[in-house]
Amino acid sequence: MAVYTEVSDEDLSAFVAQYDLGAVLSCKGIAEGVENSNFLLVTERGPYILTLYEKRTKREDLPFFLGLMEHLAVKGVASPLPVAGRDGVALRELCGRPAVIVTFLAGMWPRRVQPMHCAQLGEALARLHLAVADFTMTRPNALSLKGWHELFAKSADRADEVAVGLRDTLRAELDALEAHWPTDLPTGVIHADLFPDNVFFRGETLSGLIDFYFACNDFLAYDVAICINAWCFEIDGSFNATKARLLLANYRKVRPLSRAELDALPWLCRGSATRFLLTRLYDWLNRPPGAFVQPKDPVEYLRKLRFHQSTRSLRDYFIDDEDGTASAADPA
Amino acid sequence: MAVYTEVSDEDLSAFVAQYDLGAVLSCKGIAEGVENSNFLLVTERGPYILTLYEKRTKREDLPFFLGLMEHLAVKGVASPLPVAGRDGVALRELCGRPAVIVTFLAGMWPRRVQPMHCAQLGEALARLHLAVADFTMTRPNALSLKGWHELFAKSADRADEVAVGLRDTLRAELDALEAHWPTDLPTGVIHADLFPDNVFFRGETLSGLIDFYFACNDFLAYDVAICINAWCFEIDGSFNATKARLLLANYRKVRPLSRAELDALPWLCRGSATRFLLTRLYDWLNRPPGAFVQPKDPVEYLRKLRFHQSTRSLRDYFIDDEDGTASAADPA
Repeated sequence: MAVYTEVSDEDLSAFVAQYDLGAVLSCKGIAEGVENSNFLLVTERGPYILTLYEKRTKREDLPFFLGLMEHLAVKGVASPLPVAGRDGVALRELCGRPAVIVTFLAGMWPRRVQPMHCAQLGEALARLHLAVADFTMTRPNALSLKGWHELFAKSADRADEVAVGLRDTLRAELDALEAHWPTDLPTGVIHADLFPDNVFFRGETLSGLIDFYFACNDFLAYDVAICINAWCFEIDGSFNATKARLLLANYRKVRPLSRAELDALPWLCRGSATRFLLTRLYDWLNRPPGAFVQPKDPVEYLRKLRFHQSTRSLRDYFIDDEDGTASAADPA
Repeated sequence: MAVYTEVSDEDLSAFVAQYDLGAVLSCKGIAEGVENSNFLLVTERGPYILTLYEKRTKREDLPFFLGLMEHLAVKGVASPLPVAGRDGVALRELCGRPAVIVTFLAGMWPRRVQPMHCAQLGEALARLHLAVADFTMTRPNALSLKGWHELFAKSADRADEVAVGLRDTLRAELDALEAHWPTDLPTGVIHADLFPDNVFFRGETLSGLIDFYFACNDFLAYDVAICINAWCFEIDGSFNATKARLLLANYRKVRPLSRAELDALPWLCRGSATRFLLTRLYDWLNRPPGAFVQPKDPVEYLRKLRFHQSTRSLRDYFIDDEDGTASAADPA
């Protein structure tokens, strides 16, 4: 949960007056989004989401994020659409921060992930990857191998405060990832943060994707690996192969995965687990005293990393390796 | 801000299915209400507020609170109305907690209190006091003199951690309040917590009152004193006599204050300052480590108490003492 910036009623009314949205009826800070301040804004035209970008979102990245959301809307991917003011401009300023109003997306994110959620997620993720194929803006992934090394350097000295041996584990893992990270898989714009709280369902039907503020260019299959980590483990740390199978099978119905992508998945899963372990470790070690936001537990991702370290191929995930050929990858 | 209970989509859908509200479109935890979990629930019928009562709200008090809200709606006081399910019942259970859906009240609470807000507050408070004259349920004020002594006993040993000398200040103040607390002023149901975040405005017009979960029977003028403390001091601690004059004058246009009530106001202000100082002190000393909610600053109310201790009559508040008679009260 996060509402960092308090917006006064006067400032808000002046801001909304720049749009064709009628008068403000209500504006309530909502417990969604960890990086930015989000408000459910109700105007005479209906509900909208108002986002104020806090310092962790870089201003220079905003045209990419907003352009991506507009592109997705044109392509029919259900996601929030930035609303332009009467002057045609969507990105403005409010309380000294970049601010945007986006359309309201009906639905709730699943608190208890069921296999059917993973099935629909797989299809939606593949459709997202197809939809961005002709999006021309690019943004490098700052949280790939190079960024992981930088994050590790900032946290290494205190890593063992979170788990004994974590520093050595991470150093060895980064070396292994450096040696095995794929180089020539299909790339494109990925969501890069498609956790359950960023996927809305109406009843049992996926109704849209939100929060594109980590989107960047990287291997499309890396997005799949992020989802496997985020959606296919139980709270007790166990891997749910049914969920992973459904996720992958429904993804592949829309966008087939190549032999190279399938073989790379175990390493992509290790890399994804390392990425979230590193950011959570950093946030954990650097949480401000008295912070409103409880940092996420790094150890959850250490467990996931250890699981992936124990696999040697897709078959170890109990995932049907459809081609029938033995895996060429040997991530151990 | 406070969202304590996480409601799963399945539980919520089953809950809302008991009402004639159509399907759930969205449900977002909102950063409002310190005591309970509040959600902005959007159904096919529009927006509502879903409240789950956390442990600080006693179950046995809920019929009083809900009955009061229903009474106010009948009387035309703009405030949230509990929505009954198809079985006619408004108070249900969700996630093991008492839960209620209330109507959505348009408006925003004023982040920067202006004199015109205080003028409208005065009138609305008086109308509230008239509207409850024939409400038959009662609830004693647990946070009056006796309750203050109990709270002080729980915090006295550590009071000086917050401000040097606070323990002695509080002990002396409780003795003084005990000696001077009025006994025969007009009583009725008071809101008892009418801070700016519980009063909504649409533009410059007061649109309603919320959060009746401290309502109880006490002196009506004590509610006025609570509002003077909550609305008529600036952030730097200074007393804004213009705001207080407007608050009182507009209150008195709707419900005249008796000589005895006017004379008692300085003591009622001291009592109100002591009440919020004591609860804030307790919450400050007993905040759980890593809590999401930043406790409110007790020292703000210590400053207000000291201001009231320095007054001897309404005239010291620069408030026109309309009757022209000298004040009989001598709170020094």
